[in-house]
Amino acid sequence: MNGGAPVSQLKKVLIANRGEIAVRIVRACAEMGIRSVAIYTEPDRYALHVKRADEAHSLGEDPIAGYLDPSAIVNLAAQTGCDAIHPGYGFLSENARFAYLCEQKGIKFIGPKSSVIERMGDKTAARASMRAAGVPVTPGSDGNLASIEDAKQVAAQIGYPVMIKATSGGGGRGIRRVDNEKELEQQFPRVISEATKAFGSADVFLEKCIINPRHIEVQILADSQGSVVHLYERDCSIQRRNQKLIEIAPSPQLTPEQREYIGGLAVKAAEAVGYENAGTVEFLLTGNEVYFMEMNTRVQVEHTITEQITGVDIVREQLRVAAGLPLSFRQQDISYRGFALQFRINAEDPQNDFLPSFGRVSHYYAPGGPGVRVDTAIYTGYDIPPYYDSMCLKLVVWALNWEEAIARGERALDDMHLQGIRTTAPYYRQILGNEDFRSGQFDTSFVPSHPELLKYSNKRQPGDIALAIAAAVAAHAGW
Amino acid sequence: MNGGAPVSQLKKVLIANRGEIAVRIVRACAEMGIRSVAIYTEPDRYALHVKRADEAHSLGEDPIAGYLDPSAIVNLAAQTGCDAIHPGYGFLSENARFAYLCEQKGIKFIGPKSSVIERMGDKTAARASMRAAGVPVTPGSDGNLASIEDAKQVAAQIGYPVMIKATSGGGGRGIRRVDNEKELEQQFPRVISEATKAFGSADVFLEKCIINPRHIEVQILADSQGSVVHLYERDCSIQRRNQKLIEIAPSPQLTPEQREYIGGLAVKAAEAVGYENAGTVEFLLTGNEVYFMEMNTRVQVEHTITEQITGVDIVREQLRVAAGLPLSFRQQDISYRGFALQFRINAEDPQNDFLPSFGRVSHYYAPGGPGVRVDTAIYTGYDIPPYYDSMCLKLVVWALNWEEAIARGERALDDMHLQGIRTTAPYYRQILGNEDFRSGQFDTSFVPSHPELLKYSNKRQPGDIALAIAAAVAAHAGW
Repeated sequence: MNGGAPVSQLKKVLIANRGEIAVRIVRACAEMGIRSVAIYTEPDRYALHVKRADEAHSLGEDPIAGYLDPSAIVNLAAQTGCDAIHPGYGFLSENARFAYLCEQKGIKFIGPKSSVIERMGDKTAARASMRAAGVPVTPGSDGNLASIEDAKQVAAQIGYPVMIKATSGGGGRGIRRVDNEKELEQQFPRVISEATKAFGSADVFLEKCIINPRHIEVQILADSQGSVVHLYERDCSIQRRNQKLIEIAPSPQLTPEQREYIGGLAVKAAEAVGYENAGTVEFLLTGNEVYFMEMNTRVQVEHTITEQITGVDIVREQLRVAAGLPLSFRQQDISYRGFALQFRINAEDPQNDFLPSFGRVSHYYAPGGPGVRVDTAIYTGYDIPPYYDSMCLKLVVWALNWEEAIARGERALDDMHLQGIRTTAPYYRQILGNEDFRSGQFDTSFVPSHPELLKYSNKRQPGDIALAIAAAVAAHAGW
Repeated sequence: MNGGAPVSQLKKVLIANRGEIAVRIVRACAEMGIRSVAIYTEPDRYALHVKRADEAHSLGEDPIAGYLDPSAIVNLAAQTGCDAIHPGYGFLSENARFAYLCEQKGIKFIGPKSSVIERMGDKTAARASMRAAGVPVTPGSDGNLASIEDAKQVAAQIGYPVMIKATSGGGGRGIRRVDNEKELEQQFPRVISEATKAFGSADVFLEKCIINPRHIEVQILADSQGSVVHLYERDCSIQRRNQKLIEIAPSPQLTPEQREYIGGLAVKAAEAVGYENAGTVEFLLTGNEVYFMEMNTRVQVEHTITEQITGVDIVREQLRVAAGLPLSFRQQDISYRGFALQFRINAEDPQNDFLPSFGRVSHYYAPGGPGVRVDTAIYTGYDIPPYYDSMCLKLVVWALNWEEAIARGERALDDMHLQGIRTTAPYYRQILGNEDFRSGQFDTSFVPSHPELLKYSNKRQPGDIALAIAAAVAAHAGW
């Protein structure tokens, strides 16, 4: 019940991020008795992660530069006596040079070794590793393409449509679909040119284009003793232009046999590259085929839903592993229960082509009650700065079965009050009412093939206004 | 995955309550597609349960009378076309006449039959039922005491100290402890006089006084088809003057064998009286002895923590059972995971003898992140009326093990911002840091034997003030 080994040997951790994920990591540190150090740039001076951390340091006036400066961050970690850096997601989280710099300075990078980040970031190297390990990859070129003739030959072999991809690309950039040889001739030099400019490398490769796949990814955790486990999968097929909108765990469309199979593939993939810490192996599914897509070598936005179904605190495990401790459990100790959905509440106007809608949050009231979790860094009066990701809140719901999880999602979206900006919440409310979604059978074509879901009324409910007035009254009272 | 029987045949439910439990029931109705009808008295006109329900009706100017008027409420339910009434907890929830009136009007009372409420409300009748069913009760008189001589004889048999209790009493009233025959002679007539005035009945009985017991209660659910299951136990030993402060599920101090045994006793108790719907069987534990204390024939404040460890939505099950549907599961389908703690955040000043601290909530910010649940009806700007229960928020935390649940509780209490009133939150923060609490081994003497935990600083954190200012700024902006 009590006693036993200390939960962590880490004393102080620098969080090289902002927003909700920085708050998430501060909370994990607080629960483990680890001191947290926040960084910020001037537009973030009043941000919640700055207020909540044990200490906070400015990295300059520029909104972005400080968050992307490996040397400044590693030096600050050293100066403030941190023994580790948590990179969160985005920013420098998959930057091998940043991880390498940490290794050089003797500061633990909370993630895999820099060499593993580099290998998985190089898409042809990653494909080669997976193939060698027996993990199926999409049919395509064996490595980088030597010439346009090489490209034509491979494409003819695997059949059109194919994707030309920048080897160092990511985040949906440096990718072109071509449907025939003529298009390939046109696009091939363009992708090379793009890749050179955007990623500093002219390397490209070619993959079969999987039409309307399901996007299924597996959460894995690995410790420095070589133990690797998976925490089951997430279904991220509800996405728009490669940006995930609603994530679900487990996938409502896998059989138990498929679940075991894909979980096993992810463990194999992680073992093959000597992975350490939390990671995600992304797969494309089409019919009965499963193809490795890529590995994300960091904690993901949607780690929350895996936590809800398995009960495992993934960030806590990250901090344990970074401290050299073994994972708290073996594969056979992990079970999942119910269904969890995450809604990425973005400061965007879905009815205006998802244009960002930054500005002041005039009123925010968190949804609550059973099966509701919120991760956010916003609060009433917060100015959402225009410099960063538009995602401002993660609403997660959980229930024992699929239908109840959907009903809970509808209820929680109705309960949430977020005013002053437009958000994607009312759009998600529409998706939840759609029969194709409710059937649990959908793929990545769901969003583009349901434009009618963008038609809804934005009228405020009377209750919303009453709450906002009450908040205003309280503020005027001037305590 | 989809389809199947409708989740409920109920169409419209009147909620005969207010505050967080009314909001909790509105949410369950919303998730099940049931229309909800709120009632309120004028001080509650702007209350959250009124705003959130599908419709709301005033029951007059008097703050209390409307919530306690069986005829007015049942008539309103009939007029508004409700097919059921959910009584919540407190108010009329254990009033047999109210349940009877519902039965007479053909409106389903969401709870057991009126005859069962009456029987379990009569403490000697309840004791007799339990004894007959083989459920151990505290040693004491066989029924009501005939005379002071009778009382003396029973007390001598079972040994002092003993409790004289009003048969119709409840909520910690109509109870006196006597340590010897002389005290019994003095107190016996006083309890009779008190009972007559407070409960309209002169009946009293006598029980052995269990010194510093542990308070362990078992959640049960029973459907109209005769299926009874238990959802494991809650440890409510952290209480002050019979008022629960922190509840824990499961109890950190039961062996698996004790857990099975006490769960079985609760099922036996419910079966013995033909119980239907949700209920709680309360036990006192001392050493290896387990004694039936009483049965609460309603949903309890602390049902939340049972929901967190079992995943069962208890209010949903209540609504299903009331609609005549069977429970969604059998005993063997129910498992529990981790530990949940509920903190009853009361508008009270612990450092001033827990004096109520009603007034305006000048700023409220909900805690969030993993393993945190909040049930409340407050919001920024809400005036907590002085007429009702001081409990204004239930903060529930969950984690995979006991130590992590405590750490999460500390973190969540630190994350919550509730200003303008004094609350019990900082006192709970002290309790969580206490080694006797952390050991998981405590009984009902914990609170009175740790007066030093009331010594803490009330100083605001800088972060609190920043958040409050941000809210004020937003309000002044006048959207």
